[in-house]
Amino acid sequence: MRTVNEVAERVHARLHGDPNIEITSVSSISSARPGDLIFVDDPRHLPAAFASPASAIIAGEFAKPTTNEASAPLKPLIIARQPRLAFARAAIFLAQAQQAVPSVHPTAHLDPSAHLDPTVTVEEHAVIRGNVRIGARSIIGAGSILGPDVTIGSDCRLYPRVVLYPNTTLHDRVIIHAGAVLGSDGFGYVRDAGCGGYEKFPQIGRLVLEDDVEVGANSTIDRGALDETRIRRGTKLDNLVHVGHNVSIGEDVVIAAQTGVSGSSVIENQVIIGGQVGIADHARIEAGAILGAQSGIPSKKVIRGKGIVFWGTPARPIKQYLKDLATLARLSRT
Amino acid sequence: MRTVNEVAERVHARLHGDPNIEITSVSSISSARPGDLIFVDDPRHLPAAFASPASAIIAGEFAKPTTNEASAPLKPLIIARQPRLAFARAAIFLAQAQQAVPSVHPTAHLDPSAHLDPTVTVEEHAVIRGNVRIGARSIIGAGSILGPDVTIGSDCRLYPRVVLYPNTTLHDRVIIHAGAVLGSDGFGYVRDAGCGGYEKFPQIGRLVLEDDVEVGANSTIDRGALDETRIRRGTKLDNLVHVGHNVSIGEDVVIAAQTGVSGSSVIENQVIIGGQVGIADHARIEAGAILGAQSGIPSKKVIRGKGIVFWGTPARPIKQYLKDLATLARLSRT
Amino acid sequence: MRTVNEVAERVHARLHGDPNIEITSVSSISSARPGDLIFVDDPRHLPAAFASPASAIIAGEFAKPTTNEASAPLKPLIIARQPRLAFARAAIFLAQAQQAVPSVHPTAHLDPSAHLDPTVTVEEHAVIRGNVRIGARSIIGAGSILGPDVTIGSDCRLYPRVVLYPNTTLHDRVIIHAGAVLGSDGFGYVRDAGCGGYEKFPQIGRLVLEDDVEVGANSTIDRGALDETRIRRGTKLDNLVHVGHNVSIGEDVVIAAQTGVSGSSVIENQVIIGGQVGIADHARIEAGAILGAQSGIPSKKVIRGKGIVFWGTPARPIKQYLKDLATLARLSRT
Repeated sequence: MRTVNEVAERVHARLHGDPNIEITSVSSISSARPGDLIFVDDPRHLPAAFASPASAIIAGEFAKPTTNEASAPLKPLIIARQPRLAFARAAIFLAQAQQAVPSVHPTAHLDPSAHLDPTVTVEEHAVIRGNVRIGARSIIGAGSILGPDVTIGSDCRLYPRVVLYPNTTLHDRVIIHAGAVLGSDGFGYVRDAGCGGYEKFPQIGRLVLEDDVEVGANSTIDRGALDETRIRRGTKLDNLVHVGHNVSIGEDVVIAAQTGVSGSSVIENQVIIGGQVGIADHARIEAGAILGAQSGIPSKKVIRGKGIVFWGTPARPIKQYLKDLATLARLSRT
Repeated sequence: MRTVNEVAERVHARLHGDPNIEITSVSSISSARPGDLIFVDDPRHLPAAFASPASAIIAGEFAKPTTNEASAPLKPLIIARQPRLAFARAAIFLAQAQQAVPSVHPTAHLDPSAHLDPTVTVEEHAVIRGNVRIGARSIIGAGSILGPDVTIGSDCRLYPRVVLYPNTTLHDRVIIHAGAVLGSDGFGYVRDAGCGGYEKFPQIGRLVLEDDVEVGANSTIDRGALDETRIRRGTKLDNLVHVGHNVSIGEDVVIAAQTGVSGSSVIENQVIIGGQVGIADHARIEAGAILGAQSGIPSKKVIRGKGIVFWGTPARPIKQYLKDLATLARLSRT
Repeated sequence: MRTVNEVAERVHARLHGDPNIEITSVSSISSARPGDLIFVDDPRHLPAAFASPASAIIAGEFAKPTTNEASAPLKPLIIARQPRLAFARAAIFLAQAQQAVPSVHPTAHLDPSAHLDPTVTVEEHAVIRGNVRIGARSIIGAGSILGPDVTIGSDCRLYPRVVLYPNTTLHDRVIIHAGAVLGSDGFGYVRDAGCGGYEKFPQIGRLVLEDDVEVGANSTIDRGALDETRIRRGTKLDNLVHVGHNVSIGEDVVIAAQTGVSGSSVIENQVIIGGQVGIADHARIEAGAILGAQSGIPSKKVIRGKGIVFWGTPARPIKQYLKDLATLARLSRT
């Protein structure tokens, strides 16, 4: 629980109304109950927000003058320049207040050489192998398995049944959803020119996820073959995403569900990638490019254009793609 | 074990032959052994069916007159209007006869506040958290993890290693295959207009799966962000399917493997969706439409047409898509 | 640890230099440390290889005459006709030298009727059901669950959290990565012509993976409905691949990540399949064909052409596909 004043201070916003009202959770306007904080980023939703049982409202500057005076007696109003962002930060702040007492469940199996900060929580049936290191306040979900030499920073959250192959490294505040597999072998084989069969190429490199990375449920990220796979600060991966070996992903990249990135490709900072996109091996997506859902990037291709949307297989600027579609439709009709 | 007469009565079909013959399982014609029930929906396969070691046959009306007289001494014949459907129902009926004695394995970990019907089975190393409720005859597979406040109805089957995030609700006769993750966080972030980084938007809503829903192995279904994700009665999802937050899926929908449905989209009743289809956010697929494999539905798009097949990205009626392809091939050749 | 001479003999290559140098692992040139073996398949990388701290080098015939004389005092050189292949085999040989002492962890749960070779390793919290058989030196990863009547050959490696449904059979040297689900129910239903609802068709067949098959993390392979699904010798599947019921995959096939193969399709020997390819039901990909990433094979389609690359949806020879794209671009511009 937090007071509305604590929330307003944390999100650097102005509070109008009683600063001592207590907030326990966040909700939508339609499902709000007493104790909830809600947000409004469209002036048309303000009346419904005030009419709801919520205990406080975050809204944009538009809510400032008249609304406030009228509503101050009703419920506290927090005015933020980016109300949706302030609401998201408030939600994280409220969730921190609810965190449980750290403990290692007796059914978890820890190697004696593992080094866990005393504030770490390890849930039921987790397995933690030799030389694992885990930082302050991190939580290891039930049934998760951390191979030898795994390193996890502070404030990380592994949901149940995550597997980290040996040598995987997570920095701070990394979130891994249930069922994700990190550090698995890349898909690398050498074909025998004689018999045509395949021999496994060594997959013994490492995987590093930097601060604030989040990985969705059942996603898979392979370690480097001989060197490393790396995902940089602030990047978010949705569910069922695949990242191959030796891939390098920059900062603040978002990748929607079921997208796959093949071996040795590079994705630079602030790229936005839709769902089911396929990026073949050794491609490069330069900073700030946007790949529409289901688009396909061929092997070794370089995609360049900050803020430009690419679509189709092979991917081209969306203007070109839509023009191609229109041309085809026109010719088809004649 | 069931008698052939019990089977015929259960599937509402006519029996010709000895009603006391015992049936233990179902099989294909080619792999049939004594005790097996097989089915024939094509008259050409009748001779092979009668020649097989199977103990009984389900067939269509076509098998009625002459065949029956000749074959009655050979083996019982069950005549059904929809023989394939009758066979499917017979298989379920036979499987029910084999169910094990309910028990909670000593290695499972149950919170004292969980409420399980005495007929529930909990397998090895399952974890059941606070306030979970599980109805009659449901089975919780080995290594499955049920978060706080999960509710499961009667006759549900969770295969091993299923994860249910807090607050997930399953109604009756729901089947969840191994490795599926239900109720995980949606892919929702707020971008900070200042630094360009992403802040996690709260993902604290719920997920409801209604009666007779089946979810394939390693599929992922996100809970609502603030409200709910819901999958209605009788809908079937294949393996590795992704369903985003706030999605609403109707009754008797089928979704083949590796299809993804983005946040806030609506799929109405009786829609049929092929494999690897991508549905972007806020789209609506109206009742009875059919989406061909790999087709792509753009954001906010409405697809309308009961019984009409759509294909391509962006999806259009298949006639148009095939015409477009033919036009292109013709122009390419000249 | 192995001597450089042992390595050279094992990979059938010629050694120049001190045969008693000891090798512990493999690495890339850039990350090499003393004790490492590296490889060079491009003459331009030879100087860097010799300058690295690695203890030995595998190189192609090109490194033979002058290089050797100059470098013999520096470090041992192993000359192989296929240096990359020799390096891969050397890595496997070195890994074998490091294998742990077999043991069954006390938290694993074994049915008394299971039969494990005394050299089998079973890790923490694994569950092994009735009549399971496991051959020599196989390793069952932590949290894996093997259903009744599963059979596993010798030298298999199941990484953590693998689920094998009842009756699944693995031959020898099969590798299954974490989170994979093998033998799950196929996606088969019978629609009731009356109400339009779906009844589950029995999915009680089996799944067989032959020698040297490797399956990637979180992939799913369904058993046969009434008969079998089979993947033949030497075939490799990447992460998040889906294989439906009754599918038959030949020898030495490679299938990249997120590809899906629908029910009853046949993939013949030595086919190469890119990522995110979709193969509809009852299709046939004939021996040696190559399917480009994201291509789509319609239902019942036969793809024929050893060494020919197919691309697009529906897939056509890549020459045709690229010509179609060029035609469209040209027409769009006019």
